[in-house]
Amino acid sequence: MKEQVPGFSPGLAILQVGNRDDSNLYISVKLKAAEEVGIKVKHIKLPYMATESEVLECMTSLNEDLTVHGFIEQLPLNSENPFNTEALVNAIAPEKDVDGLSSINAGKLAKGDLNDCFIPCTPKGCLELIKETGVKIARRHAVVVGDSKIVGALMHDLLLWNHTTVTTCHSRTANLNEEVNKGDILVVAVGQPEMVKGDWIKPGAIVIDCGINYVPDNTKASVRRVVGDVLYNEAKESFIIPIPGGAGPMTVAMLMESHRERKAFPGEM
Amino acid sequence: MKEQVPGFSPGLAILQVGNRDDSNLYISVKLKAAEEVGIKVKHIKLPYMATESEVLECMTSLNEDLTVHGFIEQLPLNSENPFNTEALVNAIAPEKDVDGLSSINAGKLAKGDLNDCFIPCTPKGCLELIKETGVKIARRHAVVVGDSKIVGALMHDLLLWNHTTVTTCHSRTANLNEEVNKGDILVVAVGQPEMVKGDWIKPGAIVIDCGINYVPDNTKASVRRVVGDVLYNEAKESFIIPIPGGAGPMTVAMLMESHRERKAFPGEM
Repeated sequence: MKEQVPGFSPGLAILQVGNRDDSNLYISVKLKAAEEVGIKVKHIKLPYMATESEVLECMTSLNEDLTVHGFIEQLPLNSENPFNTEALVNAIAPEKDVDGLSSINAGKLAKGDLNDCFIPCTPKGCLELIKETGVKIARRHAVVVGDSKIVGALMHDLLLWNHTTVTTCHSRTANLNEEVNKGDILVVAVGQPEMVKGDWIKPGAIVIDCGINYVPDNTKASVRRVVGDVLYNEAKESFIIPIPGGAGPMTVAMLMESHRERKAFPGEM
Repeated sequence: MKEQVPGFSPGLAILQVGNRDDSNLYISVKLKAAEEVGIKVKHIKLPYMATESEVLECMTSLNEDLTVHGFIEQLPLNSENPFNTEALVNAIAPEKDVDGLSSINAGKLAKGDLNDCFIPCTPKGCLELIKETGVKIARRHAVVVGDSKIVGALMHDLLLWNHTTVTTCHSRTANLNEEVNKGDILVVAVGQPEMVKGDWIKPGAIVIDCGINYVPDNTKASVRRVVGDVLYNEAKESFIIPIPGGAGPMTVAMLMESHRERKAFPGEM
Protein backbone atom coordinates (compact mmCIF):
# COMPACT_ATOMS: atom_id res chain seq x y z
CA MET A 1 0.00 0.00 0.00
CA LYS A 2 1.07 3.57 -0.67
CA GLU A 3 2.43 5.84 2.05
CA GLN A 4 -0.13 8.15 3.59
CA VAL A 5 0.47 11.89 3.61
CA PRO A 6 1.60 12.71 7.19
CA GLY A 7 -1.17 14.37 9.16
CA PHE A 8 -3.84 13.48 6.62
CA SER A 9 -6.37 10.82 7.49
CA PRO A 10 -8.94 10.15 4.77
CA GLY A 11 -12.59 9.92 5.78
CA LEU A 12 -14.75 7.11 4.43
CA ALA A 13 -18.51 6.78 4.71
CA ILE A 14 -20.55 3.61 4.25
CA LEU A 15 -24.20 4.12 3.43
CA GLN A 16 -26.52 1.21 4.18
CA VAL A 17 -30.26 0.99 3.59
CA GLY A 18 -32.15 -1.66 5.54
CA ASN A 19 -30.76 -4.33 7.78
CA ARG A 20 -29.71 -7.37 5.73
CA ASP A 21 -27.60 -9.91 7.60
CA ASP A 22 -25.02 -10.23 4.83
CA SER A 23 -24.68 -6.44 4.50
CA ASN A 24 -24.24 -6.10 8.27
CA LEU A 25 -21.48 -8.71 8.11
CA TYR A 26 -19.64 -7.11 5.17
CA ILE A 27 -19.88 -3.67 6.76
CA SER A 28 -18.50 -4.91 10.07
CA VAL A 29 -15.51 -6.33 8.19
CA LYS A 30 -14.96 -3.02 6.38
CA LEU A 31 -15.25 -1.02 9.60
CA LYS A 32 -12.66 -3.22 11.25
CA ALA A 33 -10.29 -3.03 8.28
CA ALA A 34 -10.64 0.75 8.11
CA GLU A 35 -9.82 1.10 11.78
CA GLU A 36 -6.73 -1.08 11.38
CA VAL A 37 -5.29 1.04 8.57
CA GLY A 38 -6.16 4.42 10.06
CA ILE A 39 -9.12 5.42 7.92
CA LYS A 40 -11.79 7.45 9.73
CA VAL A 41 -15.05 5.75 8.90
CA LYS A 42 -18.67 6.80 9.30
CA HIS A 43 -21.46 4.22 9.01
CA ILE A 44 -24.84 5.66 8.05
CA LYS A 45 -27.76 3.27 8.26
CA LEU A 46 -31.08 4.32 6.78
CA PRO A 47 -34.18 2.31 7.68
CA TYR A 48 -35.95 -0.24 5.49
CA MET A 49 -38.76 2.30 4.92
CA ALA A 50 -36.38 4.93 3.48
CA THR A 51 -37.48 6.45 0.16
CA GLU A 52 -35.27 7.08 -2.84
CA SER A 53 -35.41 10.83 -2.25
CA GLU A 54 -34.27 10.36 1.37
CA VAL A 55 -31.33 8.30 0.15
CA LEU A 56 -30.48 10.95 -2.45
CA GLU A 57 -30.65 13.68 0.19
CA CYS A 58 -28.21 11.75 2.36
CA MET A 59 -25.92 11.23 -0.63
CA THR A 60 -25.95 14.92 -1.47
CA SER A 61 -24.79 15.74 2.01
CA LEU A 62 -22.01 13.11 1.75
CA ASN A 63 -20.99 14.52 -1.65
CA GLU A 64 -20.71 17.99 -0.08
CA ASP A 65 -19.10 16.94 3.21
CA LEU A 66 -15.41 17.89 3.08
CA THR A 67 -14.55 15.40 5.84
CA VAL A 68 -15.78 12.56 3.62
CA HIS A 69 -13.14 11.81 0.99
CA GLY A 70 -14.93 8.80 -0.39
CA PHE A 71 -18.07 6.83 0.22
CA ILE A 72 -19.73 3.62 -0.79
CA GLU A 73 -23.25 2.33 -0.91
CA GLN A 74 -23.48 -1.18 0.49
CA LEU A 75 -25.38 -3.11 -2.17
CA PRO A 76 -28.05 -4.34 -2.41
CA LEU A 77 -29.95 -1.37 -1.02
CA ASN A 78 -32.75 -2.95 0.98
CA SER A 79 -35.94 -0.91 1.14
CA GLU A 80 -39.66 -1.52 0.96
CA ASN A 81 -39.75 1.26 -1.67
CA PRO A 82 -38.79 0.85 -5.33
CA PHE A 83 -35.25 2.09 -5.90
CA ASN A 84 -33.38 2.90 -9.10
CA THR A 85 -30.10 1.50 -7.79
CA GLU A 86 -28.22 2.43 -10.97
CA ALA A 87 -29.22 6.08 -10.61
CA LEU A 88 -28.31 6.03 -6.93
CA VAL A 89 -24.87 4.60 -7.67
CA ASN A 90 -24.37 7.24 -10.36
CA ALA A 91 -25.27 10.00 -7.91
CA ILE A 92 -22.01 9.47 -6.01
CA ALA A 93 -19.60 12.30 -6.92
CA PRO A 94 -17.06 10.63 -9.25
CA GLU A 95 -14.12 11.83 -7.14
CA LYS A 96 -15.62 10.09 -4.08
CA ASP A 97 -16.63 6.83 -5.78
CA VAL A 98 -13.98 4.60 -4.17
CA ASP A 99 -15.97 1.46 -5.04
CA GLY A 100 -15.70 2.52 -8.69
CA LEU A 101 -19.22 1.34 -9.54
CA SER A 102 -20.61 4.50 -11.16
CA SER A 103 -21.03 4.60 -14.94
CA ILE A 104 -18.38 7.28 -15.37
CA ASN A 105 -15.83 5.08 -13.63
CA ALA A 106 -16.95 1.97 -15.52
CA GLY A 107 -16.58 3.93 -18.75
CA LYS A 108 -13.04 4.99 -17.93
CA LEU A 109 -12.23 1.36 -17.16
CA ALA A 110 -13.95 0.21 -20.37
CA LYS A 111 -11.84 2.68 -22.34
CA GLY A 112 -8.62 1.80 -20.55
CA ASP A 113 -8.11 5.12 -18.73
CA LEU A 114 -6.83 3.25 -15.70
CA ASN A 115 -4.88 6.15 -14.25
CA ASP A 116 -7.95 8.30 -14.10
CA CYS A 117 -10.47 5.97 -12.48
CA PHE A 118 -11.23 4.00 -9.36
CA ILE A 119 -10.92 0.39 -10.37
CA PRO A 120 -13.84 -1.54 -8.85
CA CYS A 121 -12.65 -3.36 -5.76
CA THR A 122 -13.57 -6.96 -6.60
CA PRO A 123 -11.96 -7.04 -10.08
CA LYS A 124 -8.98 -5.11 -8.68
CA GLY A 125 -8.64 -7.67 -5.88
CA CYS A 126 -8.86 -10.57 -8.35
CA LEU A 127 -6.11 -9.03 -10.47
CA GLU A 128 -3.92 -8.61 -7.39
CA LEU A 129 -4.48 -12.27 -6.48
CA ILE A 130 -3.53 -13.32 -10.02
CA LYS A 131 -0.41 -11.14 -9.98
CA GLU A 132 0.56 -12.52 -6.56
CA THR A 133 1.13 -15.92 -8.19
CA GLY A 134 4.06 -14.39 -10.06
CA VAL A 135 2.79 -15.74 -13.39
CA LYS A 136 3.19 -13.29 -16.27
CA ILE A 137 -0.30 -12.57 -17.54
CA ALA A 138 0.31 -10.62 -20.76
CA ARG A 139 -0.55 -12.69 -23.86
CA ARG A 140 -2.10 -15.48 -21.73
CA HIS A 141 -5.69 -16.51 -22.32
CA ALA A 142 -8.06 -15.51 -19.52
CA VAL A 143 -11.60 -16.81 -19.22
CA VAL A 144 -14.15 -14.91 -17.16
CA VAL A 145 -17.34 -16.80 -16.29
CA GLY A 146 -20.15 -14.41 -15.35
CA ASP A 147 -21.37 -11.20 -16.92
CA SER A 148 -22.50 -9.32 -13.84
CA LYS A 149 -22.31 -5.56 -13.95
CA ILE A 150 -20.09 -5.37 -10.89
CA VAL A 151 -17.62 -8.21 -11.49
CA GLY A 152 -17.60 -10.15 -14.77
CA ALA A 153 -17.92 -7.45 -17.38
CA LEU A 154 -15.48 -5.17 -15.54
CA MET A 155 -13.00 -8.02 -15.02
CA HIS A 156 -12.85 -8.44 -18.81
CA ASP A 157 -11.82 -4.83 -19.23
CA LEU A 158 -9.20 -4.96 -16.51
CA LEU A 159 -7.62 -8.13 -17.91
CA LEU A 160 -7.73 -6.79 -21.47
CA TRP A 161 -5.85 -3.63 -20.51
CA ASN A 162 -3.29 -5.90 -18.88
CA HIS A 163 -2.74 -7.39 -22.35
CA THR A 164 -4.36 -10.77 -21.85
CA THR A 165 -6.69 -12.28 -24.46
CA VAL A 166 -10.05 -12.54 -22.71
CA THR A 167 -13.14 -14.67 -23.23
CA THR A 168 -16.26 -13.68 -21.33
CA CYS A 169 -18.75 -16.51 -20.76
CA HIS A 170 -22.02 -16.59 -18.88
CA SER A 171 -24.37 -19.19 -17.49
CA ARG A 172 -25.98 -19.66 -20.94
CA THR A 173 -22.71 -20.13 -22.84
CA ALA A 174 -22.76 -23.19 -25.10
CA ASN A 175 -20.19 -25.88 -24.18
CA LEU A 176 -19.11 -23.91 -21.14
CA ASN A 177 -16.75 -26.67 -19.98
CA GLU A 178 -14.78 -26.36 -23.25
CA GLU A 179 -14.59 -22.59 -22.99
CA VAL A 180 -13.41 -22.80 -19.38
CA ASN A 181 -10.78 -25.33 -20.41
CA LYS A 182 -9.02 -22.74 -22.60
CA GLY A 183 -8.20 -20.46 -19.69
CA ASP A 184 -4.65 -20.11 -18.39
CA ILE A 185 -6.37 -17.75 -15.97
CA LEU A 186 -9.93 -18.42 -14.85
CA VAL A 187 -12.12 -15.98 -12.94
CA VAL A 188 -15.53 -17.32 -11.93
CA ALA A 189 -18.26 -14.98 -10.70
CA VAL A 190 -21.48 -16.55 -11.82
CA GLY A 191 -23.32 -17.17 -8.53
CA GLN A 192 -23.97 -20.91 -9.12
CA PRO A 193 -22.77 -23.20 -6.30
CA GLU A 194 -19.89 -25.46 -7.40
CA MET A 195 -20.84 -25.18 -11.08
CA VAL A 196 -17.29 -25.39 -12.43
CA LYS A 197 -15.93 -28.92 -12.07
CA GLY A 198 -12.33 -29.94 -11.66
CA ASP A 199 -12.00 -31.60 -15.06
CA TRP A 200 -13.14 -28.40 -16.81
CA ILE A 201 -10.01 -26.61 -15.64
CA LYS A 202 -6.85 -26.45 -17.74
CA PRO A 203 -3.97 -28.10 -15.83
CA GLY A 204 -1.85 -25.44 -14.15
CA ALA A 205 -4.46 -22.70 -14.54
CA ILE A 206 -4.80 -19.90 -12.00
CA VAL A 207 -8.36 -20.06 -10.66
CA ILE A 208 -10.04 -17.17 -8.85
CA ASP A 209 -13.45 -18.00 -7.44
CA CYS A 210 -15.64 -15.02 -6.52
CA GLY A 211 -18.73 -17.06 -5.70
CA ILE A 212 -20.37 -16.81 -2.30
CA ASN A 213 -23.21 -19.36 -2.23
CA TYR A 214 -25.04 -20.87 0.71
CA VAL A 215 -25.86 -24.58 0.50
CA PRO A 216 -27.69 -26.75 3.09
CA ASP A 217 -25.41 -28.56 5.56
CA ASN A 218 -26.93 -30.40 8.50
CA THR A 219 -23.55 -30.83 10.18
CA LYS A 220 -23.41 -27.07 10.89
CA ALA A 221 -25.27 -25.25 13.65
CA SER A 222 -26.51 -22.81 10.99
CA VAL A 223 -27.54 -25.84 8.81
CA ARG A 224 -25.75 -24.22 5.90
CA ARG A 225 -22.24 -23.56 4.65
CA VAL A 226 -20.60 -21.27 2.12
CA VAL A 227 -19.29 -22.69 -1.15
CA GLY A 228 -17.83 -21.00 -4.20
CA ASP A 229 -18.75 -21.30 -7.88
CA VAL A 230 -15.95 -23.83 -8.35
CA LEU A 231 -16.04 -27.36 -6.88
CA TYR A 232 -13.02 -26.79 -4.67
CA ASN A 233 -12.21 -30.40 -3.77
CA GLU A 234 -11.86 -31.32 -7.44
CA ALA A 235 -9.94 -28.16 -8.30
CA LYS A 236 -7.53 -27.89 -5.40
CA GLU A 237 -4.63 -29.18 -7.49
CA SER A 238 -4.94 -25.93 -9.47
CA PHE A 239 -3.65 -22.58 -8.29
CA ILE A 240 -6.99 -21.82 -6.62
CA ILE A 241 -7.94 -19.42 -3.86
CA PRO A 242 -10.53 -21.13 -1.64
CA ILE A 243 -13.99 -19.80 -0.81
CA PRO A 244 -14.51 -18.58 1.86
CA GLY A 245 -11.14 -16.90 2.13
CA GLY A 246 -9.90 -15.29 -1.07
CA ALA A 247 -11.82 -12.80 -3.13
CA GLY A 248 -13.97 -11.32 -0.35
CA PRO A 249 -11.18 -10.16 2.00
CA MET A 250 -9.21 -8.99 -1.04
CA THR A 251 -12.15 -6.81 -2.08
CA VAL A 252 -12.09 -5.17 1.34
CA ALA A 253 -8.32 -4.70 1.17
CA MET A 254 -8.64 -3.04 -2.24
CA LEU A 255 -11.33 -0.69 -0.94
CA MET A 256 -8.96 0.35 1.83
CA GLU A 257 -6.12 0.81 -0.66
CA SER A 258 -8.27 2.87 -3.05
CA HIS A 259 -9.36 4.97 -0.13
CA ARG A 260 -5.90 5.48 1.36
CA GLU A 261 -4.82 6.84 -2.01
CA ARG A 262 -7.45 9.59 -1.71
CA LYS A 263 -5.86 12.99 -1.52
CA ALA A 264 -6.81 15.83 0.78
CA PHE A 265 -9.16 18.32 -0.86
CA PRO A 266 -7.55 21.62 -1.98
CA GLY A 267 -7.01 23.89 1.01
CA GLU A 268 -7.67 21.12 3.52
CA MET A 269 -4.10 20.54 4.69
CA MET B 1 -35.52 3.96 -38.62
CA LYS B 2 -37.99 5.41 -36.15
CA GLU B 3 -40.69 7.85 -37.18
CA GLN B 4 -39.78 11.48 -36.57
CA VAL B 5 -42.05 13.69 -34.49
CA PRO B 6 -43.99 15.84 -37.03
CA GLY B 7 -42.66 19.38 -37.12
CA PHE B 8 -39.52 18.51 -35.18
CA SER B 9 -36.23 18.45 -37.02
CA PRO B 10 -33.24 17.58 -34.85
CA GLY B 11 -30.13 19.73 -35.15
CA LEU B 12 -26.71 18.08 -35.39
CA ALA B 13 -23.32 19.79 -35.17
CA ILE B 14 -20.00 18.37 -36.33
CA LEU B 15 -16.92 19.92 -34.76
CA GLN B 16 -13.67 19.55 -36.70
CA VAL B 17 -10.23 20.77 -35.71
CA GLY B 18 -7.66 21.08 -38.50
CA ASN B 19 -8.00 20.02 -42.11
CA ARG B 20 -7.16 16.31 -42.49
CA ASP B 21 -8.11 14.80 -45.83
CA ASP B 22 -9.77 11.74 -44.28
CA SER B 23 -11.76 13.86 -41.81
CA ASN B 24 -12.94 16.13 -44.66
CA LEU B 25 -14.09 13.04 -46.55
CA TYR B 26 -15.94 11.49 -43.60
CA ILE B 27 -17.60 14.79 -42.75
CA SER B 28 -18.78 15.33 -46.33
CA VAL B 29 -20.42 11.87 -46.22
CA LYS B 30 -22.11 12.70 -42.90
CA LEU B 31 -23.34 16.08 -44.19
CA LYS B 32 -24.84 14.42 -47.25
CA ALA B 33 -26.51 11.67 -45.21
CA ALA B 34 -27.93 14.20 -42.75
CA GLU B 35 -29.41 16.24 -45.57
CA GLU B 36 -31.02 13.14 -47.07
CA VAL B 37 -32.80 12.18 -43.85
CA GLY B 38 -33.86 15.70 -42.89
CA ILE B 39 -31.40 16.45 -40.10
CA LYS B 40 -30.31 20.09 -39.86
CA VAL B 41 -26.54 20.00 -39.64
CA LYS B 42 -23.95 22.60 -38.70
CA HIS B 43 -20.27 22.02 -39.56
CA ILE B 44 -17.85 23.96 -37.37
CA LYS B 45 -14.23 23.88 -38.45
CA LEU B 46 -11.59 25.24 -36.10
CA PRO B 47 -8.11 25.90 -37.50
CA TYR B 48 -5.01 23.76 -36.99
CA MET B 49 -3.65 26.39 -34.56
CA ALA B 50 -6.70 26.15 -32.27
CA THR B 51 -5.91 25.67 -28.58
CA GLU B 52 -7.64 23.26 -26.21
CA SER B 53 -9.36 26.15 -24.44
CA GLU B 54 -10.73 27.46 -27.74
CA VAL B 55 -12.13 24.01 -28.51
CA LEU B 56 -13.67 23.81 -25.04
CA GLU B 57 -15.24 27.25 -25.46
CA CYS B 58 -16.81 26.16 -28.72
CA MET B 59 -18.07 22.96 -27.07
CA THR B 60 -19.63 24.89 -24.20
CA SER B 61 -21.61 26.97 -26.66
CA LEU B 62 -22.75 23.80 -28.48
CA ASN B 63 -23.73 22.23 -25.15
CA GLU B 64 -25.85 25.29 -24.36
CA ASP B 65 -27.30 25.82 -27.85
CA LEU B 66 -30.94 24.63 -27.81
CA THR B 67 -30.98 24.25 -31.61
CA VAL B 68 -28.21 21.63 -31.34
CA HIS B 69 -29.72 18.36 -30.15
CA GLY B 70 -26.54 16.37 -30.58
CA PHE B 71 -22.99 16.95 -31.67
CA ILE B 72 -19.90 14.99 -32.51
CA GLU B 73 -16.21 15.72 -32.59
CA GLN B 74 -14.61 14.37 -35.74
CA LEU B 75 -11.60 12.39 -34.47
CA PRO B 76 -8.68 12.68 -34.56
CA LEU B 77 -8.64 16.33 -33.57
CA ASN B 78 -5.78 17.80 -35.59
CA SER B 79 -3.99 20.70 -33.97
CA GLU B 80 -0.44 21.93 -33.56
CA ASN B 81 -1.22 22.22 -29.85
CA PRO B 82 -1.25 19.35 -27.36
CA PHE B 83 -4.84 18.16 -26.77
CA ASN B 84 -6.31 15.92 -24.12
CA THR B 85 -8.72 14.25 -26.53
CA GLU B 86 -10.26 12.11 -23.80
CA ALA B 87 -11.14 15.18 -21.74
CA LEU B 88 -12.54 16.91 -24.80
CA VAL B 89 -14.73 13.93 -25.66
CA ASN B 90 -15.95 13.83 -22.06
CA ALA B 91 -16.87 17.52 -22.19
CA ILE B 92 -19.77 16.78 -24.55
CA ALA B 93 -23.02 16.96 -22.57
CA PRO B 94 -24.08 13.31 -22.16
CA GLU B 95 -27.54 13.98 -23.60
CA LYS B 96 -25.93 15.37 -26.78
CA ASP B 97 -23.24 12.69 -27.23
CA VAL B 98 -24.79 10.96 -30.26
CA ASP B 99 -21.46 9.31 -31.11
CA GLY B 100 -21.57 7.70 -27.65
CA LEU B 101 -17.83 8.05 -27.09
CA SER B 102 -17.81 9.81 -23.70
CA SER B 103 -16.85 7.82 -20.61
CA ILE B 104 -20.32 8.09 -19.12
CA ASN B 105 -21.83 6.49 -22.23
CA ALA B 106 -19.09 3.86 -22.41
CA GLY B 107 -19.78 3.06 -18.76
CA LYS B 108 -23.49 2.57 -19.37
CA LEU B 109 -22.62 0.28 -22.28
CA ALA B 110 -20.06 -1.58 -20.15
CA LYS B 111 -22.71 -2.13 -17.49
CA GLY B 112 -25.41 -3.15 -19.96
CA ASP B 113 -27.70 -0.13 -19.50
CA LEU B 114 -28.42 -0.14 -23.21
CA ASN B 115 -31.72 1.72 -22.97
CA ASP B 116 -30.10 4.66 -21.28
CA CYS B 117 -27.10 5.26 -23.52
CA PHE B 118 -26.04 6.20 -27.01
CA ILE B 119 -24.44 3.07 -28.41
CA PRO B 120 -21.25 4.08 -30.24
CA CYS B 121 -21.95 4.18 -33.96
CA THR B 122 -19.33 1.76 -35.29
CA PRO B 123 -20.12 -1.11 -32.87
CA LYS B 124 -23.84 -0.40 -33.33
CA GLY B 125 -23.40 -0.57 -37.11
CA CYS B 126 -21.43 -3.83 -36.86
CA LEU B 127 -24.18 -5.38 -34.75
CA GLU B 128 -26.81 -4.29 -37.30
CA LEU B 129 -24.75 -5.89 -40.08
CA ILE B 130 -24.49 -9.11 -38.09
CA LYS B 131 -28.23 -9.14 -37.36
CA GLU B 132 -28.99 -8.45 -41.03
CA THR B 133 -27.63 -11.91 -41.87
CA GLY B 134 -30.57 -13.39 -39.99
CA VAL B 135 -28.29 -15.65 -37.96
CA LYS B 136 -29.30 -15.96 -34.31
CA ILE B 137 -26.37 -14.65 -32.28
CA ALA B 138 -27.29 -15.58 -28.69
CA ARG B 139 -25.06 -18.38 -27.37
CA ARG B 140 -22.77 -18.19 -30.42
CA HIS B 141 -19.06 -17.52 -29.97
CA ALA B 142 -17.95 -14.10 -31.18
CA VAL B 143 -14.32 -13.11 -31.58
CA VAL B 144 -13.34 -9.44 -31.64
CA VAL B 145 -9.84 -8.68 -32.89
CA GLY B 146 -8.68 -5.25 -31.74
CA ASP B 147 -8.84 -3.51 -28.38
CA SER B 148 -9.25 0.08 -29.51
CA LYS B 149 -11.16 2.38 -27.21
CA ILE B 150 -13.70 3.29 -29.88
CA VAL B 151 -14.41 -0.08 -31.50
CA GLY B 152 -12.98 -3.31 -30.11
CA ALA B 153 -13.51 -2.95 -26.38
CA LEU B 154 -17.00 -1.51 -26.86
CA MET B 155 -17.92 -4.20 -29.39
CA HIS B 156 -17.20 -6.81 -26.70
CA ASP B 157 -19.72 -5.19 -24.39
CA LEU B 158 -22.41 -4.88 -27.04
CA LEU B 159 -22.05 -8.53 -28.10
CA LEU B 160 -21.99 -9.72 -24.49
CA TRP B 161 -25.26 -7.96 -23.68
CA ASN B 162 -26.70 -9.69 -26.75
CA HIS B 163 -25.88 -12.98 -25.01
CA THR B 164 -22.97 -14.13 -27.13
CA THR B 165 -19.82 -15.59 -25.61
CA VAL B 166 -17.08 -13.13 -26.56
CA THR B 167 -13.31 -13.39 -26.90
CA THR B 168 -11.38 -10.15 -27.28
CA CYS B 169 -8.00 -10.50 -28.99
CA HIS B 170 -5.44 -7.89 -29.96
CA SER B 171 -2.41 -7.66 -32.18
CA ARG B 172 -0.21 -9.27 -29.49
CA THR B 173 -2.51 -12.24 -28.83
CA ALA B 174 -0.65 -15.57 -28.88
CA ASN B 175 -1.79 -17.97 -31.65
CA LEU B 176 -4.15 -15.37 -33.04
CA ASN B 177 -5.11 -17.60 -35.97
CA GLU B 178 -6.41 -20.26 -33.58
CA GLU B 179 -8.39 -17.74 -31.57
CA VAL B 180 -9.91 -16.28 -34.72
CA ASN B 181 -10.84 -19.77 -35.86
CA LYS B 182 -13.21 -20.20 -32.91
CA GLY B 183 -15.49 -17.36 -33.97
CA ASP B 184 -18.94 -18.02 -35.37
CA ILE B 185 -18.96 -14.24 -35.56
CA LEU B 186 -15.75 -12.34 -36.25
CA VAL B 187 -15.31 -8.58 -35.93
CA VAL B 188 -11.89 -7.26 -36.93
CA ALA B 189 -10.83 -3.72 -36.04
CA VAL B 190 -7.10 -3.91 -35.55
CA GLY B 191 -5.77 -1.51 -38.19
CA GLN B 192 -3.36 -4.00 -39.84
CA PRO B 193 -3.81 -4.35 -43.60
CA GLU B 194 -5.07 -7.82 -44.58
CA MET B 195 -3.74 -9.39 -41.38
CA VAL B 196 -6.51 -11.99 -41.04
CA LYS B 197 -6.05 -14.73 -43.66
CA GLY B 198 -8.81 -16.82 -45.21
CA ASP B 199 -7.76 -20.09 -43.60
CA TRP B 200 -7.96 -18.51 -40.13
CA ILE B 201 -11.72 -18.11 -40.49
CA LYS B 202 -14.17 -20.75 -39.31
CA PRO B 203 -16.23 -22.02 -42.26
CA GLY B 204 -19.58 -20.27 -42.37
CA ALA B 205 -18.54 -17.50 -39.97
CA ILE B 206 -19.98 -14.00 -40.25
CA VAL B 207 -17.06 -11.63 -40.77
CA ILE B 208 -17.24 -7.88 -40.18
CA ASP B 209 -14.13 -6.00 -41.22
CA CYS B 210 -13.79 -2.48 -39.78
CA GLY B 211 -10.28 -1.89 -41.14
CA ILE B 212 -9.55 1.08 -43.37
CA ASN B 213 -5.91 0.79 -44.45
CA TYR B 214 -4.10 2.42 -47.36
CA VAL B 215 -1.62 0.26 -49.26
CA PRO B 216 0.54 1.26 -52.27
CA ASP B 217 -1.02 0.49 -55.65
CA ASN B 218 0.68 1.76 -58.80
CA THR B 219 -2.32 0.89 -60.94
CA LYS B 220 -4.33 3.68 -59.30
CA ALA B 221 -4.03 7.40 -60.08
CA SER B 222 -3.65 7.98 -56.32
CA VAL B 223 -0.97 5.20 -56.23
CA ARG B 224 -2.80 3.66 -53.30
CA ARG B 225 -5.94 1.71 -52.51
CA VAL B 226 -8.00 0.93 -49.45
CA VAL B 227 -7.92 -2.56 -47.95
CA GLY B 228 -9.48 -3.98 -44.81
CA ASP B 229 -7.93 -5.93 -41.94
CA VAL B 230 -9.07 -9.18 -43.56
CA LEU B 231 -7.58 -10.55 -46.79
CA TYR B 232 -10.84 -10.27 -48.69
CA ASN B 233 -10.01 -12.46 -51.68
CA GLU B 234 -9.28 -15.41 -49.42
CA ALA B 235 -12.28 -14.77 -47.19
CA LYS B 236 -14.97 -13.98 -49.70
CA GLU B 237 -16.55 -17.42 -49.33
CA SER B 238 -17.46 -16.34 -45.80
CA PHE B 239 -20.35 -14.05 -44.96
CA ILE B 240 -18.07 -11.01 -45.23
CA ILE B 241 -18.85 -7.34 -45.80
CA PRO B 242 -16.16 -5.96 -48.11
CA ILE B 243 -13.94 -2.95 -47.40
CA PRO B 244 -14.50 -0.33 -48.70
CA GLY B 245 -18.24 -0.65 -48.48
CA GLY B 246 -19.54 -2.07 -45.21
CA ALA B 247 -18.69 -0.79 -41.78
CA GLY B 248 -17.99 2.85 -42.73
CA PRO B 249 -21.35 3.67 -44.35
CA MET B 250 -23.13 1.71 -41.61
CA THR B 251 -21.40 3.89 -39.00
CA VAL B 252 -22.78 6.97 -40.72
CA ALA B 253 -26.25 5.42 -40.94
CA MET B 254 -26.17 4.62 -37.21
CA LEU B 255 -25.16 8.18 -36.39
CA MET B 256 -28.16 9.42 -38.34
CA GLU B 257 -30.43 6.91 -36.61
CA SER B 258 -29.13 7.84 -33.14
CA HIS B 259 -29.66 11.45 -34.00
CA ARG B 260 -33.14 11.07 -35.45
CA GLU B 261 -34.15 9.45 -32.18
CA ARG B 262 -33.22 12.64 -30.36
CA LYS B 263 -36.22 14.23 -28.72
CA ALA B 264 -37.10 17.92 -28.67
CA PHE B 265 -35.93 19.67 -25.50
CA PRO B 266 -38.67 20.39 -22.93
CA GLY B 267 -40.69 23.43 -24.00
CA GLU B 268 -39.26 23.43 -27.52
CA MET B 269 -42.28 22.06 -29.38
